[in-house]
Amino acid sequence: MPEFLHLQTPDEARSLLLRSLPDPQPAAETIDTTLALGRVTALPVEAPHPLPAFDRSAMDGYAVHAADTFGASESLPAYLKVVGEVSMGAQPDIDLHPGEAALIHTGGMLPASADAVVMLEYTQMVGRGDLHGRPGAGTPFVPRTPAAHRCETASPAPTPEIEISRAVAEGENVLRIGEDVRQGQVVIPAGMCVRPAEVGGLMALGVTQVAVVKRPRVGLISSGDEVVQPEQTPRPGQVRDVNSYTLSALVTKTGGEPVLYGIVPDDLETMQQVARRALSECDLVIITAGSSASARDMTADAIRSLGEPGVLVHGVNIRPGKPTILAVCDGQAVIGLPGNPVSALVIAGLFVVPVIEKLLGLPADRPRPSLLARLTINVPSQAGREDWVAVRLLRPSPLAPSRSTPLGLPSAGEGEWLAEPIFSKSNLIFSLVVADGLVRIPPDANGVSAGEVVEVVLM
Amino acid sequence: MPEFLHLQTPDEARSLLLRSLPDPQPAAETIDTTLALGRVTALPVEAPHPLPAFDRSAMDGYAVHAADTFGASESLPAYLKVVGEVSMGAQPDIDLHPGEAALIHTGGMLPASADAVVMLEYTQMVGRGDLHGRPGAGTPFVPRTPAAHRCETASPAPTPEIEISRAVAEGENVLRIGEDVRQGQVVIPAGMCVRPAEVGGLMALGVTQVAVVKRPRVGLISSGDEVVQPEQTPRPGQVRDVNSYTLSALVTKTGGEPVLYGIVPDDLETMQQVARRALSECDLVIITAGSSASARDMTADAIRSLGEPGVLVHGVNIRPGKPTILAVCDGQAVIGLPGNPVSALVIAGLFVVPVIEKLLGLPADRPRPSLLARLTINVPSQAGREDWVAVRLLRPSPLAPSRSTPLGLPSAGEGEWLAEPIFSKSNLIFSLVVADGLVRIPPDANGVSAGEVVEVVLM
Repeated sequence: MPEFLHLQTPDEARSLLLRSLPDPQPAAETIDTTLALGRVTALPVEAPHPLPAFDRSAMDGYAVHAADTFGASESLPAYLKVVGEVSMGAQPDIDLHPGEAALIHTGGMLPASADAVVMLEYTQMVGRGDLHGRPGAGTPFVPRTPAAHRCETASPAPTPEIEISRAVAEGENVLRIGEDVRQGQVVIPAGMCVRPAEVGGLMALGVTQVAVVKRPRVGLISSGDEVVQPEQTPRPGQVRDVNSYTLSALVTKTGGEPVLYGIVPDDLETMQQVARRALSECDLVIITAGSSASARDMTADAIRSLGEPGVLVHGVNIRPGKPTILAVCDGQAVIGLPGNPVSALVIAGLFVVPVIEKLLGLPADRPRPSLLARLTINVPSQAGREDWVAVRLLRPSPLAPSRSTPLGLPSAGEGEWLAEPIFSKSNLIFSLVVADGLVRIPPDANGVSAGEVVEVVLM
Repeated sequence: MPEFLHLQTPDEARSLLLRSLPDPQPAAETIDTTLALGRVTALPVEAPHPLPAFDRSAMDGYAVHAADTFGASESLPAYLKVVGEVSMGAQPDIDLHPGEAALIHTGGMLPASADAVVMLEYTQMVGRGDLHGRPGAGTPFVPRTPAAHRCETASPAPTPEIEISRAVAEGENVLRIGEDVRQGQVVIPAGMCVRPAEVGGLMALGVTQVAVVKRPRVGLISSGDEVVQPEQTPRPGQVRDVNSYTLSALVTKTGGEPVLYGIVPDDLETMQQVARRALSECDLVIITAGSSASARDMTADAIRSLGEPGVLVHGVNIRPGKPTILAVCDGQAVIGLPGNPVSALVIAGLFVVPVIEKLLGLPADRPRPSLLARLTINVPSQAGREDWVAVRLLRPSPLAPSRSTPLGLPSAGEGEWLAEPIFSKSNLIFSLVVADGLVRIPPDANGVSAGEVVEVVLM
């Protein structure tokens, strides 16, 4: 088994696997935009029309000709006649002549003849009129300087008039047509995961259906003569299938569609048959090996028979999960995971998730959130091998001196969390249930010391 | 409007809102464990039986009486007769007498009379027999020292015998009954978000159904005379409803169930009616105000009429989103969000998400992942006010000197990403579509300088 003489690092192994796969040609399906959260766009989306679709006021105030305000100041205000109010949601039927202004609200459509908006707080009523009497015309969120605009003790002139204490430039306080997006602009590229913002952006444009990448089908095969279905009561010597379900959940979380092929006994021919069927029906096949060495070898033999080039990596310099098998068979990835549930889940995070993301057309180099925490105790590790250690996250004792991040943030600050390693035999699934995340101990270290800040990948 | 004289910080406001809500009494529903990913457990789960349910071998090797190996070393090995092989998935029918050993594989059930396992690599065949001839009996992942166990040139004795070069203690290389979990132990507490590991842990115990918290119903009301449904073609002056959909997606993502009440015109009585109905049908009600000041005031008036104590906070010292309204009406939270889509989404992340999490019974102080990045340019901010700035994340130019994290990690290292602020009017939803996340500029700063490391909350 020469593959084990020079074990690759996880990064090398993953990189080899990904570059050995053909460029994905994701199949698309069109779905309602309201259901697209978490899906990946299959095609670029172009704006069918500009946004805003009309010049809108960005403030509560008065629509004006900017030129009418030039030179206006507190000591030398400009005076404009108020000829009307723009109703929300309607095209204003106001033709603004020089020297005239119209009351307008945030989001209101600018009269065609106006070219700027003076904010309410730089205006003051000097004539009397209904326009200022309406409740709430003043915006409550701005300082009421230079003077309260509601002051209605001014002259009883028949035509309402405002005093403007500050000049505005053309376009000031106006959202212009197309200022958010231009017509025909690609507003969402292909290969983008749809978040709440994208859902909103599409709806703003009336794009109520969107082409998304079909969820890649991920075939899951469990193996092992000792493994039974979860609903069965295991007899002595038997254990329930865990890997089909942890991996199903991980696949679902990553955006794939798990397809379960059940439990295959430790028999080469049966495994080959099931794996071939899975490969023909799915985009990616995962086989979790039985726990014994012979079962693992059988898995490798089965994978070798599935297509060219076959096994690329057999054994990775990592703990847990050394007996990982990475293969490409006739253009499709086949991954053999160790049978023990903790190894299988950790390794799937490192190798299965990136393949699903590639199949989805997501960029490989995407920002991924994590959390920094301070290690509570030394974690020894063998140099040359990458270790992934499960940790529990705890808050420091209130008596301990507190440390804070550059911004004093409570959520992910360095040292704000403590990472307590969970030392456990890797076969114990509940060691992951009590864990908050995983810490990578890099291969060039003999471990990480208590007090060091580590990056925790939340599970 | 005295609420605006002393604007609260977002943290103060959120804390007031959360502590003014009664302790949640989450309603439960029982679902298939395979569908529980992302749901929150409603009740603690106890282990119906121990795991492992039998003593299992943790290694490939030989089941032995530990006492038979005491004192064994390379120079003075112990010799044991090999009386059989433990089949995977079956109760071994082997009664091990002193001086005897049985071949066993990882995960195999320990014969009742054995109490330890000697790893294969510390054994060597001295007799001849089938047991060693089977392919793959050797584990390929361990150094083949002190000697290859497959060496079959030894004496042609009729009974296979092994030489053991290392002593084992009682229980060594054995997973004992209950070592993962004990019978009756609470293996998953209430209020825990189900991840792949929990799905697997439950399946390992045969717990194929689980009680989870019903998704809190979150009523969403959009308002504004200018707002129309996304499938409509807006007339001049009209815009499509965005907030119902961004907020639906955010609610779904957080684990709630959005209930849309459509678009309500800027009319107090209609708003009161719709809001009362939403409050009676939902656990939490969100109203996005029309964009004008008068529409915002109308929203506040409507919320005041819904129950006691009513509005707790009207206006938060934050940008965007100052005109936020936080209320508790007869024990239920009602949140008034600004009408503009960017403010609404940012504020919902700060106030709606924590309320949903409380309704789900999730602990408030949970680890939350984020990402550290280096700001590309100065971001000025008004002291005393908390700003949330949308940023795009970029990789530094390859020519720039690289910086790395303590662990050299590619994913979230300080300085490994650059955060480029997106300066945009807050009404423009596509400013969030192009953003990767949000950066908090704390109130005690006049901004953050280029080159500083900031925490990016991914959207």
